[in-house]
Amino acid sequence: MARPQVSRRALAVARGDEPADMLITGGRVFSAATREWIDTSLALADGVIAGWGEREALEVLDVDGAALTPGFVDAHMHLESTKLWIDEFIATVLPHGTTAVAADPHELANVLGVPGIVALMEAAAPLPFTFGVYAPSCVPASGFERSGAALDSSDIRELIESRGALGVAEVMNFPGVIAGDEEMLARVAAAGYRRVDGHSPGLSGRELDAYLAAGVESDHECTRLEEAEEKRRKGMWVFLRQGSASQNLVALAPSVIAHGTDRAAFCTDDREPDTLRRAGHVNDCARLAVAAGVSEIEAIILASTNPASYHGFTRLGSLGPGYQADILCFSELGSWEPDSVWQAGRLLARDGRILPGAVPPSPPPELLRDTVNIGALPHAEALVLAAAPGTRVRAIGVESHSLTTLHRKVTIEPGADVVHAAVVERHHGTGRIGRGFATGFGLKRGAIASTVAHDAHNCVIVGASGQDMAAAVARLAEIGGGQVAVLDGQVMAEVPLPLAGLMSDQSAERVSDQLRALGAAAAERLGTTVEEPFMQLSFIALSVIPELRLTDGGLVDVERFAYVPVELA
Amino acid sequence: MARPQVSRRALAVARGDEPADMLITGGRVFSAATREWIDTSLALADGVIAGWGEREALEVLDVDGAALTPGFVDAHMHLESTKLWIDEFIATVLPHGTTAVAADPHELANVLGVPGIVALMEAAAPLPFTFGVYAPSCVPASGFERSGAALDSSDIRELIESRGALGVAEVMNFPGVIAGDEEMLARVAAAGYRRVDGHSPGLSGRELDAYLAAGVESDHECTRLEEAEEKRRKGMWVFLRQGSASQNLVALAPSVIAHGTDRAAFCTDDREPDTLRRAGHVNDCARLAVAAGVSEIEAIILASTNPASYHGFTRLGSLGPGYQADILCFSELGSWEPDSVWQAGRLLARDGRILPGAVPPSPPPELLRDTVNIGALPHAEALVLAAAPGTRVRAIGVESHSLTTLHRKVTIEPGADVVHAAVVERHHGTGRIGRGFATGFGLKRGAIASTVAHDAHNCVIVGASGQDMAAAVARLAEIGGGQVAVLDGQVMAEVPLPLAGLMSDQSAERVSDQLRALGAAAAERLGTTVEEPFMQLSFIALSVIPELRLTDGGLVDVERFAYVPVELA
Repeated sequence: MARPQVSRRALAVARGDEPADMLITGGRVFSAATREWIDTSLALADGVIAGWGEREALEVLDVDGAALTPGFVDAHMHLESTKLWIDEFIATVLPHGTTAVAADPHELANVLGVPGIVALMEAAAPLPFTFGVYAPSCVPASGFERSGAALDSSDIRELIESRGALGVAEVMNFPGVIAGDEEMLARVAAAGYRRVDGHSPGLSGRELDAYLAAGVESDHECTRLEEAEEKRRKGMWVFLRQGSASQNLVALAPSVIAHGTDRAAFCTDDREPDTLRRAGHVNDCARLAVAAGVSEIEAIILASTNPASYHGFTRLGSLGPGYQADILCFSELGSWEPDSVWQAGRLLARDGRILPGAVPPSPPPELLRDTVNIGALPHAEALVLAAAPGTRVRAIGVESHSLTTLHRKVTIEPGADVVHAAVVERHHGTGRIGRGFATGFGLKRGAIASTVAHDAHNCVIVGASGQDMAAAVARLAEIGGGQVAVLDGQVMAEVPLPLAGLMSDQSAERVSDQLRALGAAAAERLGTTVEEPFMQLSFIALSVIPELRLTDGGLVDVERFAYVPVELA
Repeated sequence: MARPQVSRRALAVARGDEPADMLITGGRVFSAATREWIDTSLALADGVIAGWGEREALEVLDVDGAALTPGFVDAHMHLESTKLWIDEFIATVLPHGTTAVAADPHELANVLGVPGIVALMEAAAPLPFTFGVYAPSCVPASGFERSGAALDSSDIRELIESRGALGVAEVMNFPGVIAGDEEMLARVAAAGYRRVDGHSPGLSGRELDAYLAAGVESDHECTRLEEAEEKRRKGMWVFLRQGSASQNLVALAPSVIAHGTDRAAFCTDDREPDTLRRAGHVNDCARLAVAAGVSEIEAIILASTNPASYHGFTRLGSLGPGYQADILCFSELGSWEPDSVWQAGRLLARDGRILPGAVPPSPPPELLRDTVNIGALPHAEALVLAAAPGTRVRAIGVESHSLTTLHRKVTIEPGADVVHAAVVERHHGTGRIGRGFATGFGLKRGAIASTVAHDAHNCVIVGASGQDMAAAVARLAEIGGGQVAVLDGQVMAEVPLPLAGLMSDQSAERVSDQLRALGAAAAERLGTTVEEPFMQLSFIALSVIPELRLTDGGLVDVERFAYVPVELA
């Protein structure tokens, strides 16, 4: 990132030779390095903080003792998980105080590759937000599935060297790195002088050492305190995650309380639109951390200064002269809801609401539409395996509050909690279909389907009826992707996700409502009992997490890292 | 700096599949992020720390409870001030625990420009040390003097983008930056994503704001606590300096004690060889800081972790797996003298001594020799101004313990403490000579001369006798630069500095002895009374520090930033 040359006007305002655009006075200003609140004024000019202290200004705002902090920075997140397009995402999180993120467009990359990432970067560039992008490192996640696109080390290098990517995104294939896989090591090396984010749930001891020795610098998958402690001691940055599903912050906060904030930051990883609207974003992390005993000043460092520093956002994370004027004003800091949010010197949100016109619409690139290419639509028979009553089969077991599936062995019989599962390749119209069984959904009739299906994002369906499964696939093909619940050939509820089959082009409110209605339809009309059935559905194809998964290539035993037959001998 | 791909062997050692090169066991290992000591072993392989904990190893070293810390890093220094060539400098500081520096080759640049810097970088590259180089930003220091070479923003950009310079070195022309001088702003912008070091003695308030707004990130010139506090609060990195002459660490340490270590680091700036040998280097900063009340752990962060982080030495400053094996072993940490020093996994120093062969000789490039080009040697008359007794003249006043000169007005009369001063252009043989008077040296006979003459490094001479001044110039021309004391046409003592007229090609011990003999000769034979007369001499040409200076162009009133006549009306 080239260093912008300071404007002559900002310099003149700093010197006191010209009036500031605005003077924010009467506040207490957060000082990151000395961990204090300083009673001073901030003089803004041309989007930067030009100076501290009284100055002439075109506009003077007295904030009457409010706390002024730098904008919050999400250390690691996936835009696609919010199901929102970039403009709507930004309009949703700005009122909560987030002015920057480090995003891994890993899902989009699985559908559209480098061109999809570049399209996203171009769409984000004009928006009033720092949308940092990392180069996805593990696309596709495994060779067991057909994704829309693949990225190798030269793609990663191109994204970093020529496209402004901040580094290499979470290196999920930690077994490959540890084993010394040549291509994985080349992907890490492609970072050059930039960052390499990690993903190493539960990794410790010698395996962690090897992962670190290879050059990985951060982790956001810690769930246990001692895991975070080992990682920090060994020099790894630990991002305390608080997502919609994975909520690890409170368990890890004691590490910060005991040892301070060095090499730690908040991240949200995956947040649903409803969570964003209801609980907030990085400000929610700060709120929870303080409730858990972290000091307010430390929470701000974890929410802003540290992630900005880690990601090389050199002009964010502080309110010193020369920093970008990303400023949050809290009349009550303890609420963690800013009264006002300035980004690059412009007031964009007030009292929890985005201001009209604050975020200009960013029309989604055409490239992202019409990505569902199934070819000839499959009939019911193509989606289900015939299995006579009494047949013993392997079934993918799902459970609430866990994305680990269970390798279940069940008998097909009336009344058993077993449904059909299928994954239809949906990028290249190959007609590849993987078929099997699932248990634990509680689904009793109809079918549910999704084109959000980590990581290759094929079309995944579970159903009690082959006809309804086929109808669900047909509906998703028709609307260009999304999530749907079907009963007796009728769509009960749906969330269209026409952008890469992953994101909506509607408002956060609309998408939240649609998701809520979809969940209700699944539970009330189809009888699902597992919590978040569509989240469970979207993960049953992920062939790198234990224990049993289904891809368009067939049933995968992740422990053995091999295809296995559905029917037991 | 490209990220080196981890070696297969280091990865295998990390995993435990191959024996380590060495296992350092029985120590307590410094953990930077959690600020603890951890009882564990370090397994080294191929120059890096491959892992923590017990492993098979080709060699096992039990350090019996010793403290193990990462190698120390000097946040800002000038090699030329040590008067040593790079190999001798490294051999001198390694036993004190320094394994990396951020060097500003600003003096060399004034003599030889970009080629000189590149030659230094090439000479340093094969040595067992991290010799980071910044691109000098203010060469020459002003238009009042003729330097050997000049650097503009395109040279700075080239050094950073193509030659591996770490950023823009101390931007001494802060008035230019604050005023918005186009070329100075372009030099700052040339840093791109890299660092911009500052130099802003006493700067505060609006001027400091402007300097920061322009993009400058650090300062090592703080002398007062409140100055350091303001700079840190405003987001500036403050390097606590402890040089041979400028000793600011103890005054600034309370800032760290009160507010912690964020955005602070130790630096030495300018250390004489005798100081290096007697007091040490960065370890001396740590010793003094701890004596002043800084905790040991914080001292290590200031001595290693923080400067490594600031300068982008991503594999230094920690002992975590994957970091370069720059390790200091202290059986008594409080001594701040390491028993053993490993650099990139090799033991290079023990018990305060460099090991034989540890630092291979690095022959100085021929480019650095024969840089004294005076042309026709000046006669006595060309070096002195005739001034009849009773004449009132401006004289450069020097005082012990200060590099600020005084704008003195004195009367030429017998017994007055006034001597002749001259600056002879020595790079291009132009014959330009500036002449004037100096007071405060106490020199009563003979002459002293130096080709170390900040910043243009012309040949500066003060003397009671024009003949001795001419003899001194002739001697320096003969030996290719250095410092010399002459009486009655005879050399009383000298320090040959044949490398760019700035550095010796001899050992630190030899140079220390020579310098001591030179100072003794000046005091005992020539009667100087000011402390460090050669340091005073080497600064009287520096036309950017108040109040009165002499360059090869004439006498400069720095306050008015203009030439002034010597004789008063």
